[in-house]
Amino acid sequence: MATTATDRSATDPSGTLTRFETHPSQYRHWQLDVEGDVATLRMSVDPEGGLRPGYELKLNSYDLGVDIELADAVQRLRFEHPEVRAVVLTGSLDRVFCAGANILMLRTSAHAFKVNFCKFTNETRLGIEDASENSNKRFLAALNGTASGGGYELALAADRIVLVDDRNSAVSFPEVPLLGVLPGTGGLTRITDKRKVRRDRCDVFSAIAEGIKGKRAVEWDLVDRVVPLSKWDETVQEEARALADTVPARKAKGIELPPLVCEQRADALIYQYVELRWSQSERVAHLTIKAPDTCPKDAAGALAEGAKWWWFQAFRELDAALLHLRFDLRDIALVLVRAVGNAATVRTTDELAAGETQWFVNEVRHFVKRTLKRMDLTAKSFFAVIDDGTAFTGSFLELALAGDRTYLLDDPGHAIEIGITVANAGMFPMSNGISRLETRFLGAPEQVATILSEMRQVPASEAAELGLATFAPDEIDWEDELRLAIEERASFSPDALTGMEANLRFAGPETMETKIFGRLSAWQNWIFQRPNAAGEKGALVCYGTPTRPEFSVERT
Amino acid sequence: MATTATDRSATDPSGTLTRFETHPSQYRHWQLDVEGDVATLRMSVDPEGGLRPGYELKLNSYDLGVDIELADAVQRLRFEHPEVRAVVLTGSLDRVFCAGANILMLRTSAHAFKVNFCKFTNETRLGIEDASENSNKRFLAALNGTASGGGYELALAADRIVLVDDRNSAVSFPEVPLLGVLPGTGGLTRITDKRKVRRDRCDVFSAIAEGIKGKRAVEWDLVDRVVPLSKWDETVQEEARALADTVPARKAKGIELPPLVCEQRADALIYQYVELRWSQSERVAHLTIKAPDTCPKDAAGALAEGAKWWWFQAFRELDAALLHLRFDLRDIALVLVRAVGNAATVRTTDELAAGETQWFVNEVRHFVKRTLKRMDLTAKSFFAVIDDGTAFTGSFLELALAGDRTYLLDDPGHAIEIGITVANAGMFPMSNGISRLETRFLGAPEQVATILSEMRQVPASEAAELGLATFAPDEIDWEDELRLAIEERASFSPDALTGMEANLRFAGPETMETKIFGRLSAWQNWIFQRPNAAGEKGALVCYGTPTRPEFSVERT
Repeated sequence: MATTATDRSATDPSGTLTRFETHPSQYRHWQLDVEGDVATLRMSVDPEGGLRPGYELKLNSYDLGVDIELADAVQRLRFEHPEVRAVVLTGSLDRVFCAGANILMLRTSAHAFKVNFCKFTNETRLGIEDASENSNKRFLAALNGTASGGGYELALAADRIVLVDDRNSAVSFPEVPLLGVLPGTGGLTRITDKRKVRRDRCDVFSAIAEGIKGKRAVEWDLVDRVVPLSKWDETVQEEARALADTVPARKAKGIELPPLVCEQRADALIYQYVELRWSQSERVAHLTIKAPDTCPKDAAGALAEGAKWWWFQAFRELDAALLHLRFDLRDIALVLVRAVGNAATVRTTDELAAGETQWFVNEVRHFVKRTLKRMDLTAKSFFAVIDDGTAFTGSFLELALAGDRTYLLDDPGHAIEIGITVANAGMFPMSNGISRLETRFLGAPEQVATILSEMRQVPASEAAELGLATFAPDEIDWEDELRLAIEERASFSPDALTGMEANLRFAGPETMETKIFGRLSAWQNWIFQRPNAAGEKGALVCYGTPTRPEFSVERT
Repeated sequence: MATTATDRSATDPSGTLTRFETHPSQYRHWQLDVEGDVATLRMSVDPEGGLRPGYELKLNSYDLGVDIELADAVQRLRFEHPEVRAVVLTGSLDRVFCAGANILMLRTSAHAFKVNFCKFTNETRLGIEDASENSNKRFLAALNGTASGGGYELALAADRIVLVDDRNSAVSFPEVPLLGVLPGTGGLTRITDKRKVRRDRCDVFSAIAEGIKGKRAVEWDLVDRVVPLSKWDETVQEEARALADTVPARKAKGIELPPLVCEQRADALIYQYVELRWSQSERVAHLTIKAPDTCPKDAAGALAEGAKWWWFQAFRELDAALLHLRFDLRDIALVLVRAVGNAATVRTTDELAAGETQWFVNEVRHFVKRTLKRMDLTAKSFFAVIDDGTAFTGSFLELALAGDRTYLLDDPGHAIEIGITVANAGMFPMSNGISRLETRFLGAPEQVATILSEMRQVPASEAAELGLATFAPDEIDWEDELRLAIEERASFSPDALTGMEANLRFAGPETMETKIFGRLSAWQNWIFQRPNAAGEKGALVCYGTPTRPEFSVERT
């Protein structure tokens, strides 16, 4: 297997953490320009700017570093540029919009990195769709050249796709014919379920390495419009203008997103509201989120604090911690989640956020939603630990509900409460479209109604009766029970746990999003393990080399 | 990888075909008893009766041969015993109901076999649920001892589960803790989505190798009732009686299911209505289904013919051919599907079957539905070839719609028609719950209405305009276009094709069934490839040996 050699592969507290934070002034691969209510995000990948050595990012192909910038840009457009109504995604190269994920990078990456890379890029594309749905912005993919593989998948995340008609430029999925893998960044799901291309045409399209261009690309609904090269610039402008005009104008002034401050130790990341500590030998991490004692009481107060608003900053820190868990702490099996601090602050904030239409609070609410989804989709076991000093209330309680189990100390000697707020009543739908409480009580919807009927702090014993705890030991059993559960979890096959959690976490309905992460990603992960793709003679390994791939011809 | 050695691994025309046909008189592993309207299906696996040498089927563990008998029994109950209203699934061993799929068998099987084995067992369990929904029967899992892994998954397919309370017997999913794989035969899907067990409890349950018994098994909704050993026999009888009484009584007399007659050649299987021919060097098979000139005009006539009714026999033959394609012709990449014969016969038969409530026609209709689903789920590419002599009408047209592409000869010199009948209007829903036409035109539901508005034979050029063909070349291009498409398909990575088809075939809604085949199976297939399960030190390989498994601890 041509893997791992050049890839930082395991929990390496002395190593450098993946850097997820960036800023437009530091971008190496994108140019972000905002003019009035139209932003242009131009892909301009620096071939020498790969996140690690060993590959060149030719033809606007991307690696994690490129996608981190894209995710940053979309985020900043939401927070720093609320006035923007249309975002043009386009490229700066001649004849090529984007060649997709870099093949040499994929080939030389460890399986675990590859899977997490794909997950992150999927989240970025879903983030674009989330911005369209919830952030007063529409996205235009202005394909100024060929969009192949991940390049076309990026376009599929946009609301509208226009393709230049220069007799050459096409959209394509060359993965199956050339690489022996799938268009796994949502491609095979979005062509059938979002663009609703006829399935036999999807089959044909996915088999033509050079892609489809011109009139047929429109007829087959692969793009919305083709535009002659001579009219390209003016048409893109017109299209962007028209798209912007479908959205109400917004005069708001944005807030700045400063970098997070993090103290990095050998076995901990310490943010202001979030702490992540780990023990490599035990393969366990402790993730703690803390609510402060004071907070703004209304949306204007929240906006005045901007990125310093505790709720926003706490979830930004949580988001960062989750990403480091995925990419930099791969050996960690289990994360023990605690919420501490002032529960009243969480309640006040949840109530502030509920139904608030002010743009900033709306943005933060959707950011919290995306962070919680990131947690649902993280391939680590999460056990919520609810003991002394707990503040699992409302939006913090969602972290416990996102976890695989909750351990609740139920003992008369300890005054422990769980708090129900409006945040648990559908403010943060999961990828499956329903709330974490609804998912938990799929078989007992009346239980959801009971729990939500009084939005208050609930004592431990009552919370246990309401079904909010997996286990509720008393003080005598508490430590042993938790210790055994932790040791046991760390002893299981990491792969079996990943597969199990991917199934159990998403009971009930399915959406395009769950199809992407459940169905498409699982098949892609399978294929990434198969010798026909990743073996010495596999297509992914041989592509671009003089060696022709050789397949084991068995259909499975 | 501890695989393949003892497993017939490829297209082997000289080899023995897997024998899917059997009869209660030949069962080695089950006893089927029918008493009035209650049938008992008793698992009694012969340890020496494995389908191939190398493993012993201890503790009612099963292999493909055991499941073939179960599938046969369920089928016969539907056709030979329409009077049966309740089916008791129980075991003949002391303290053990069923230990699940045999580990040594799994360990020594090739990946492709393992995947197809799991698919077949999944179909068998879905077949039990289909019989409950559509065949006037209810299933009682009477667990007279521990049901582990696949044993409990079998029980989950039943309508009701009772478990003996002998202080020992439990239900369990030991896959994750002991074997490093998943309960992949629907287990992880049915506990959350059918029994709607709370997801944190599912997590706990799936981590306890010894399982859960007694009162807690009921509290957690894992079983419906526990019964003391002293009252076991009478309670099971009462439960079966009560279950039978929830269903209307039926006086009908069944029809016999004789074995299919098949001429087996080195490169062909020739049935009466179905022919399967293949070229191993080209990796292409030709599957042809034929309609006769005469047929019964009403349900009574169909019943009088019984298993000889052409429609039933043709689809039984098709079902057999599909299974041989999966298990015995693994190197075949592409199947060219043709329908020939008298289209008027298909139309007459479809009309006969539409809305008919007579038990036999109803059973056949659901059998055709299940066979078409088997086709949707077969990991081969299917191209429908619609040329001279074609009879792609109604229920036969569903085969073209189930395929990945349709090639239609559209030439004035050839009188070629496609036929729309009532069978295309929802008679045969796919696993996603909607019809193949609805899936095809997910983005254009009005097109479905247009196509269904006139149920008639449609000339080729009109059919092409209606969107029923992927390609419609004229006579000049026909041969070249088809030849190139065939060569191209056979050149692609078989794994990439499997993953691509698994995604593209199921546009639109998801059901428990698509979740099992799409999400759960894909994760299981991934895990089956991982060294942590299938490597030399993998859990699946080490289980039951003195070697302790060793895991690569990275979470992916």
